[in-house]
Amino acid sequence: MSFTIKNALVATEDSYATVDVQIRDGKIAAIAPELEAVGTIVDGANKLLLPGFFNAHTHSSEMWQRGIMSVLPLELWLAELYDFAPLDTEQVYLSALGTAVETLLSGGTSVVDHLVLIPGLELETIATAVRAYREVGIRAFVAPLIQDESMTAGIPSGESAQTHEPYFRSTAATLELIAEAVRQFHRPDEGVEILVAPTGIQLCTDALFSGCIELSSRYNLCRHSHLLETKAQAKLAQEKYGCTAVEHLSRIGYLSDRTTLAHCVHLTDDDIAILARTGSTVVHNPLSNLRLGSGIAPILKYRQAGVNVTFGCDGASSNDSQDLLEAIKIGSILHNVTDLDYQHWITPRQSVEMASLGGAKGLNLGEQLGSLTVGKKADLVLYDLRNLSLLPRTDPIGLLVLGRPTNVVDSAWVNGKQIVAHGQVTTINVNNLRQELFNLSRWDTQRKSPTVAQIEAHYRQVMGLL
Amino acid sequence: MSFTIKNALVATEDSYATVDVQIRDGKIAAIAPELEAVGTIVDGANKLLLPGFFNAHTHSSEMWQRGIMSVLPLELWLAELYDFAPLDTEQVYLSALGTAVETLLSGGTSVVDHLVLIPGLELETIATAVRAYREVGIRAFVAPLIQDESMTAGIPSGESAQTHEPYFRSTAATLELIAEAVRQFHRPDEGVEILVAPTGIQLCTDALFSGCIELSSRYNLCRHSHLLETKAQAKLAQEKYGCTAVEHLSRIGYLSDRTTLAHCVHLTDDDIAILARTGSTVVHNPLSNLRLGSGIAPILKYRQAGVNVTFGCDGASSNDSQDLLEAIKIGSILHNVTDLDYQHWITPRQSVEMASLGGAKGLNLGEQLGSLTVGKKADLVLYDLRNLSLLPRTDPIGLLVLGRPTNVVDSAWVNGKQIVAHGQVTTINVNNLRQELFNLSRWDTQRKSPTVAQIEAHYRQVMGLL
Repeated sequence: MSFTIKNALVATEDSYATVDVQIRDGKIAAIAPELEAVGTIVDGANKLLLPGFFNAHTHSSEMWQRGIMSVLPLELWLAELYDFAPLDTEQVYLSALGTAVETLLSGGTSVVDHLVLIPGLELETIATAVRAYREVGIRAFVAPLIQDESMTAGIPSGESAQTHEPYFRSTAATLELIAEAVRQFHRPDEGVEILVAPTGIQLCTDALFSGCIELSSRYNLCRHSHLLETKAQAKLAQEKYGCTAVEHLSRIGYLSDRTTLAHCVHLTDDDIAILARTGSTVVHNPLSNLRLGSGIAPILKYRQAGVNVTFGCDGASSNDSQDLLEAIKIGSILHNVTDLDYQHWITPRQSVEMASLGGAKGLNLGEQLGSLTVGKKADLVLYDLRNLSLLPRTDPIGLLVLGRPTNVVDSAWVNGKQIVAHGQVTTINVNNLRQELFNLSRWDTQRKSPTVAQIEAHYRQVMGLL
Repeated sequence: MSFTIKNALVATEDSYATVDVQIRDGKIAAIAPELEAVGTIVDGANKLLLPGFFNAHTHSSEMWQRGIMSVLPLELWLAELYDFAPLDTEQVYLSALGTAVETLLSGGTSVVDHLVLIPGLELETIATAVRAYREVGIRAFVAPLIQDESMTAGIPSGESAQTHEPYFRSTAATLELIAEAVRQFHRPDEGVEILVAPTGIQLCTDALFSGCIELSSRYNLCRHSHLLETKAQAKLAQEKYGCTAVEHLSRIGYLSDRTTLAHCVHLTDDDIAILARTGSTVVHNPLSNLRLGSGIAPILKYRQAGVNVTFGCDGASSNDSQDLLEAIKIGSILHNVTDLDYQHWITPRQSVEMASLGGAKGLNLGEQLGSLTVGKKADLVLYDLRNLSLLPRTDPIGLLVLGRPTNVVDSAWVNGKQIVAHGQVTTINVNNLRQELFNLSRWDTQRKSPTVAQIEAHYRQVMGLL
């Protein structure tokens, strides 16, 4: 399957050029002005061609609760989230489709889904999400969210002695579940990977982390976790380990150049040096960090220390969208208020590189994806520069990153297969998806989380909120 | 002209109701279930009806430079902006149309345009913007941006003795210009108001402020200024007055219940008390404050002190969009990182009230606009809840404010006149606008600001950036 994009605008070192791009067998075969047209012709005139971005951290099924979650910090918000979590695979299917569509239509061609598993239907949940992503054709990194401690263990004890229910599934059974998911669904050549994804130090034992490291080595899997999203987690790490979470994860060998770590808000300078040394990747989720009041991740410090950084939307209940361009914009400009020296601020071209090559590197695919380079896989997005939100014509990348582009994705390809054309997803029927989302939901404002009611007093006390 | 919106969802105290809304003679005449249909029928089923929002601070002609401005703090950014500012009224016309369209399609029915005047064509600039807003039909508060000191006077002197060129137009001539604009264009009953709008303490003498106060009293005009946007301005106020800018403006009588103040990032607790006592309104421009690294305005403190707060996009060169829903979202969630106690955080319903009634109050129109109240003017927006970005159905206001709604404005009315229908602006041809913006611009990355080159060393020195 070959095609040629004619006369597209592409970024050069500090400007733009108009070129043709040949794609053969799913790969970029040539980039130059006035190439011979092979295969189908795609008109790239007045359009900007960029490598596809990575939505490098999300939880697809949170789409069902976007807009309705109370204004709460992570620990209480999670309690509310789980009280009302979706419990059937039809919902998992539709929210994976929705996540894929919103990601694609905002420039993403890859999604890392830290997938919440329905208890008792774990493999079915994974199978369903994989099916949805295959149908859409987006590149999917399915990271089944696992833990082996119960929810309440994620809140620091403070002065009080807290006991927690044991988690309902054993560590060994959880690891076996992931091994089975790998056997059934891990198909890197087909654009579907399974990741080991222990949720984070707040709810995982060392046994679970070690088992994940072992699976990661045995099957060559990437690793994905939350890390130090909140002040409460930083406190908890000290209670649990007597050192920072990063020091502990480094000691047990979890950090590596194929480990992506969502959030990374509360790290020390020493922690940052450890991330740099281990080649770990930070996934910045700015909207979620603001929505949940988690804090501002020190992204400028990461960049100065040479830590690889990319962007994620996070789950739609803490965002409450899957618009990757919005996450990139806010994740870029937010940090200008943390450093008076504007020479350290992120430029739009740097943002694009973080969102594309930064994501690819984190998933150990920096040689295969993330830039317009001959020989790399053709995960590409073509933006329509005649859209009102990208006018007047100024600097196209500046306006794409710093503006509020809407309806600007004209075409998108994954592995050389076109899955968006003329602004529409071509692989699934989005109108049917809308209708099903509508039919399976109802407007609501009156819900109350029983778990929040149980744990709020302890949370306020241990966090010094009186 | 009468019409009835049938079966629309509206917010009740803590839930929603489905009602009919009758509009007669530009005003809301009745709100209740199953009303008699008067005039044209508008189908409100599966749609949310809200009062129109206020884009309470922008500079329309900045649209010409959105996306291309360097990553710089305000003082240097302004130098670059003015080096490349548009110089003809055709550009002013098109960017006012563009600002109106983007504001309308993101829920705004009023715009406060702190309009940059073309030197020598001041009244023509104002006439052109007024004409554009009248054509679109958006409610327009045109605030001609005036000053009587030159650009370089806006940067603190520090230890060095700085001298500045005198401003090219006298204070008296500037005040006469505004008086003439009022006579020609101030037509509150027709939805067009002129505001007195000295840019701020950084570039205005007390004589200019006093003249504006006098015009404001004589013609019953609202007042609009920038206030303490940057740390540099806080420094400058101390150099100029030996006290804070708020103390000074209060002493000379500029603050009032019809004074709106853009930014308000660097205020002391005493300053906040003065804003509350004088009934002044803060216009929060979160995206611009992040983009320019100005800081995070202490919005939660304002709310706790009883200061009225509303939202603005600010000019499109520091945002770089005019999507009001984006400004409302970020302006709401940004503050969660400034206060650990989530009980102080802004809820989506509070955001809606700030964006509607908050804007109306600031413009001394709280009795006439800003809420769905019988007897108020019909500035209304109907949102389509079947749009993918507002699905699944959860809490419509939560999802509108915290999500990333795109293409969701189905209809909008100003003074009872419909100006958006079926998602399209009906009063002007937006495709022609796009074509003209395209034709009058070109892609560019290579510009360099000579003024930035001149003043950067002094700026870095006085701000302690070495």
